[in-house]
Amino acid sequence: MTGVWSIVVGAGTGSRFGGAKQYEELSGQRVVDRSVSAAAALSDGVVVVLPVDDVADVGVRTAGAVEVVAGGATRSDSVRAGLAAVPDDVGIVLVHDAARPLADPAVFERVLTAVRDGAAAAVPVVEVVDTVREVDGAVVDRSRLRVVQTPQGFDARVLRTAHAAGGEATDDAALVEAAGGTVVLVAGDRANLKVTEPLDLVVAGALLAARGGDGGDSSS
Amino acid sequence: MTGVWSIVVGAGTGSRFGGAKQYEELSGQRVVDRSVSAAAALSDGVVVVLPVDDVADVGVRTAGAVEVVAGGATRSDSVRAGLAAVPDDVGIVLVHDAARPLADPAVFERVLTAVRDGAAAAVPVVEVVDTVREVDGAVVDRSRLRVVQTPQGFDARVLRTAHAAGGEATDDAALVEAAGGTVVLVAGDRANLKVTEPLDLVVAGALLAARGGDGGDSSS
Repeated sequence: MTGVWSIVVGAGTGSRFGGAKQYEELSGQRVVDRSVSAAAALSDGVVVVLPVDDVADVGVRTAGAVEVVAGGATRSDSVRAGLAAVPDDVGIVLVHDAARPLADPAVFERVLTAVRDGAAAAVPVVEVVDTVREVDGAVVDRSRLRVVQTPQGFDARVLRTAHAAGGEATDDAALVEAAGGTVVLVAGDRANLKVTEPLDLVVAGALLAARGGDGGDSSS
Repeated sequence: MTGVWSIVVGAGTGSRFGGAKQYEELSGQRVVDRSVSAAAALSDGVVVVLPVDDVADVGVRTAGAVEVVAGGATRSDSVRAGLAAVPDDVGIVLVHDAARPLADPAVFERVLTAVRDGAAAAVPVVEVVDTVREVDGAVVDRSRLRVVQTPQGFDARVLRTAHAAGGEATDDAALVEAAGGTVVLVAGDRANLKVTEPLDLVVAGALLAARGGDGGDSSS
C-alpha cells in the first residue's frame, strides 16, 4: 500500500450557520480552500466533497491535485462518495472537515504517524476545559472525555470495509470502531476549530492573525 | 429574602495558563475587572475571591460595591470563603468565574429569572458542537451533553446548605445536586468563554471587538 489521500468533506448546507459556511471568506481565502490546502500539503491527492448543486460551479483553489465530487444525503454518504474517488492502491486515507480551516500540519503529521505505526484509525483530540453535564442528568467526569477533531486518519482498507457496511456516524472513527477496529487518540490542537456559527469566523480570523500571517496564500 | 449578590471566583494560580490569567489585560482592561463589572451590573453587591497573596495588592476596579476576600485551597473552598462575606439576608447568590470576562447581561438575566421563578439552582449551558468520546471508550451521544458556563444562580439558602457539607466539585450546581436540589438549565452563550490558555485571550479580544466596543469601560 502506498500514498496518502485526503477526503475533505463539505457537503453540508450549513443549517446551523444559516448558509454554506464552507464558502465564507476567512482572511482573504474561503474556508474550504484553506481546509483543502491544509490537507493537500500532507497528501498525494485530495478529494473534495461538496453539495451536488455546487460541484460544477465552485472552483476549489489549492496547490495539490484535487478532484471534486458530489456529496450524499448524510455525512457518511458524503465520505463514501469521496472514498469512491480515492485510487484503489492508496494505503492511508485522511478524512477532514471542510469547516476546519485552521488544521495545523503538526496535527496532520501526528495522525499520519499513528497510522503508519500500525493504527487502524487515528483521531486528534483535545481535553474538555468546561464542566459538562447530561441534559437530563448529572455532571459528567470531564477528565474522561475528549473532544474529537479532524483530520482523522485510516488504514484505507479498514475505512473502506467500515463504510461498505453503509452505516451512519458523526465521525468515521466511530464507524471503524463499530466494525471492530481500534482507534488511537493523538494530540489535537485547540485552535483547530470547526466553523459552526458566524461567531467562529471571527474567532478563526483572530487565531490566523495571531499566527502571524493569513496562511496558505502561497498557493495563489 | 431580598437582593442579589455575586461571588466572582478567581483564586486559581493558572497552572494551565502558565500564570495568573485573571490579571491579564484584555482590550485595555484586566480579565478579572471585566468579569466583576459584568456581575456588578446585575447585582447589589459583589465578593471577589483572589489568591491570598493578592488580596492586599490587587485592586479590583468596578462600578459596583465590592469586597475582596482570600480564596482557599480548592475552588469550593474559595466559593465558601466568598459566601461567608455575603450578607445573611441576601436571597439570591450568583457564582461567576473570574476567567469569564465576556459574560453577557442577557445570560445573567436568564439565570436570575430562573431562580426568581423558583429554581434552587440555574446554570447556563450551550450545546456541544464537536464529536465527544470517552478517552478509553466509545463516542458519546453529544445531543445529550451540555457544556456548563457561569454565572450560576442559586437560592442563597440552598447554596449555603450545600456548601456547609464541605464537599468539593468543579461547579456549584453539582454540589447543590449532590445535596438533593434540582438544577434548571438555561441558555448560555458560546461567546462566554473561559480563559484557560493564552489562545483564549486572542479569541476573547476578537469577540469583544466584534461586539463593537471593548465593553465595560464606562466604569473607568
